[in-house]
Formats: sequence, C-alpha cells, structure tokens
Amino acid sequence: MHLDISFQMLTNNETKLINSLVKKKFRQKYNKFIVEGVKIIGELRNGPVKIHKIFSTDPSVFPDENLIELISENELKKISQLVQPNTVLALCEIPDEKPIQTEGLILVLDDVRDPGNLGTIIRMADWFGIEQILCSNETVDLYNPKVIQATMGSFLRVQINYTDLNEFFKNYKNPVLGTFMKGENIYETQIPKNAAIVLGNEANGISEELNSFMTDKISIPRFGKSQMTESLNVAMATAIILSQSASQNFKK
Amino acid sequence: MHLDISFQMLTNNETKLINSLVKKKFRQKYNKFIVEGVKIIGELRNGPVKIHKIFSTDPSVFPDENLIELISENELKKISQLVQPNTVLALCEIPDEKPIQTEGLILVLDDVRDPGNLGTIIRMADWFGIEQILCSNETVDLYNPKVIQATMGSFLRVQINYTDLNEFFKNYKNPVLGTFMKGENIYETQIPKNAAIVLGNEANGISEELNSFMTDKISIPRFGKSQMTESLNVAMATAIILSQSASQNFKK
Repeated sequence: MHLDISFQMLTNNETKLINSLVKKKFRQKYNKFIVEGVKIIGELRNGPVKIHKIFSTDPSVFPDENLIELISENELKKISQLVQPNTVLALCEIPDEKPIQTEGLILVLDDVRDPGNLGTIIRMADWFGIEQILCSNETVDLYNPKVIQATMGSFLRVQINYTDLNEFFKNYKNPVLGTFMKGENIYETQIPKNAAIVLGNEANGISEELNSFMTDKISIPRFGKSQMTESLNVAMATAIILSQSASQNFKK
Repeated sequence: MHLDISFQMLTNNETKLINSLVKKKFRQKYNKFIVEGVKIIGELRNGPVKIHKIFSTDPSVFPDENLIELISENELKKISQLVQPNTVLALCEIPDEKPIQTEGLILVLDDVRDPGNLGTIIRMADWFGIEQILCSNETVDLYNPKVIQATMGSFLRVQINYTDLNEFFKNYKNPVLGTFMKGENIYETQIPKNAAIVLGNEANGISEELNSFMTDKISIPRFGKSQMTESLNVAMATAIILSQSASQNFKK
C-alpha cells in the first residue's frame, strides 16, 4: 500500500511551547496541556476538552481527524514526556473549572503531592462512580503530564476542582470522614451516601487546620504481623475505602 | 562533635558486582540482591535475610552495626538504583525458598510483569495478613531492585515462591477464585478462608492454560460512566479483593 503523505515539520516554537508545558507556570500562562497515547487521545476526541492539534507518527491513526499533523519519530521524541513515546501527542486547552458539586459522595484531597497517586485516585473514583474530587490548592496539578497519563483517561469523567479546603468546609453541611492511622474501623462504619471522604498528604496526613471539620475519623485496620507504624499508600487507601462504600450497596 | 571516621573506598569489583545485580541472571549467579534506604534496611537488620555489607554515607546510621562500610555520596551514586540515593545500600544473600504453604488464603500471580505492581501486591498482602504469594515462573523476579523497593520492606513478612502454576494446581484441593472482567460480583461472593485468589497478567489476564483450574470466576463491578472495556490495575484489584475478604470478618 502506498500512502501519499507529506510529513510536516514541528516548528521550533511548537517544540518549545509543548516542552514548557511540563511546568504548571507555563500551563497556566498558555492555558494548555498535553495528552499522549492512542487509547487516551481516542477517548479525548469524544469528550468536551478542546484539542488544538494532534501530532502523530502514524498516518493510519484517527484517519478522519482534521487536527492531525504527521511528524517523524524523532520529532515525537523531542516533545514527548514518555520514556517510550506512543505514536500520538495531543495539545489541548485547559477547560474552565465547573462549579463544585457537593451532593453525593465526594473525595477531598488535602495536599496529595505524587502525580502517580493523584492519577490513580482519579482512576479509582471513575471506577466507583465518584463524580467530584476536590483538591487543596497544594495538591499536585491535574494537568501535570504524569497525572494525566496515570488517569488513563479517567480525568474526562470525574470533575476535579482546586480550592481552599478550609473555606470549603466552612459551608459544607454533610458528614466529613477523615482517614487517619487511628479511627473507626472502616469495616464497621456505614459510609453515608452524602459525605466527604478526606485523604491527606503522603507524609503528613490530614493537616491540623482541617482537623476540626472532621465529623468522623476512619481507619483501615491492619491484619499483618508488622509492628511498624506504616500507613497505606494514599491511592491504595482510596481504592479500599471506595470499594468498602460500594460493598455496602449489596446485600449478602 | 568530632567523629574519627576513615572513609573506605568501594572497590571496582564491588561496584561491578552490585551493578550487575539489576539483572536476574547475575542475581542468580551470585545469589545476591540489594536493598536501599534507611527505613527498609532498618527492618532488614531484624530479619532472617543475611546481610553481607551495608554501604553508608552517614556514620551515624546504625552505629552498632559491624557490617557498615562508609562510602562517599559519589560512590553511593555509582551503586544505587534510585534516582535519589538514600544514605544506605545493603548487599544481601538471596534466602532459600521455603516449602509452599497451601493453607489459608493465598495469592497466586499468573505472570505479573510490572515490578511496581508486584511490590504493591506484596505490600497489600502484608497489610491484610496474607502469608503466601505464589508466582508463576514468568512473574517479575522478587529480587528485582524495583520490586524490593516497592514492597517497602513487606517482602520480609510474606512468603513468596515461584513455581509452575499448572503443576501446583493439579494437587491443590481448595477453591480457586480467578479474577476476570466478567464473573461473580465480589461484593456478593463469600471469599473462603482456605482458597487461592488468582490474578493475571497486566495485558492478558489469566492464561488459558490455567482456566480449567478455576472453581469460581470473580469480578470487581464497575460503577462509573465509562463505556470503555477497561480493567483495573492488578495491584488495585488485589487491594480491593483483599479488603473485601477482610471486610467479611466483621459484622455490621
């Protein structure tokens, strides 16, 4: 098969712009972020996020897409943030934040710093049908390329807002369940349908400032032999708590 | 305070040996592996694993330890597998495998390839008091430095064996619960006290060869809006299943 394709050149300006977007400062300045990989960009194309351009090394990917610009593998390497670049990279516009939804079960992240953790938490929220994640302003930025890639596309289906949590909780009326090393056993706790579950920073947990807003302290009990005062990884804790909440919808 | 410390030199042979241990071939040849970081080596010192030497950049770490050899930060960089080396690196002997325990709830990994996934699964098993993990021979090696680091020390408390799973299941008498995209809802399944839970490869799931040994197919239902045929990450699935099993020990 012969494809009559003329490869275009990435301009220096494009390369510079795209590489600058690893930094939050430049994502905010240009209001843009990047997404990589065939599967996740495939989802992106059905969604509400505005795509400016899709750079691709393969003319047969998304053949009906007008925004495609063919580039060489070397050029993709220059703009990709992945160790092994995956065919396509989309340059997208950061959408406006929607108003925070307070109904239902919401997740609140108090200063989660690791991009992989945030990405995984978003993926878990999507799996368990959680529609709102509220992040402290210090939480790692959603549009950090590592976060976006770790979500595997789930960021398109979960609403994520950044806000001053102290201010938010002043007006929040539902129960606030904080996760702590010591608290009520989650397997003996009924998780309300309308509530906030708060997860803290990887090293320091939930900040003291927010402590007074917690109506319940919950904890995942440890069953193993270790005497160490270890805590679970925050993404794992999220998976377990959301699973336990889902479990309560079923009668055995 | 003045400490009279003479820094020793890492020999070229030591550097070469330690760096070779990123490869399974050389770990098997020398029967050695490495562990890094103050916290995990602190645990290691109480355990059954034989330590040959601990290389440290800080004389005040483990002051009562005879096996310490002080090295410079540059030398630690040369032997560390971490992006940010953490003070100490221990050269250890790979212990003999103990006989497989078949009693209780055991985890069986059919070709889990990602080191981070295996490390996290071991950590979850430790948390939930699972004493035996059985890995297919194709599963990523426990003594891969990335696996060891991801366990955060939990590999010291969970017994891990590698074996031909096909042969193992021929003689295994308890229920075998395989995790599949479609199966019985885990929230409506009673997980037996004596059983094997089988988790499959990241891309391909449980191999066809093992299918006939499954007495039950279980599945984690999805609650979100996505229409994609995605599966959960295998480490997350493990966390959710072990949590659900733990949950069944409590009456609400």
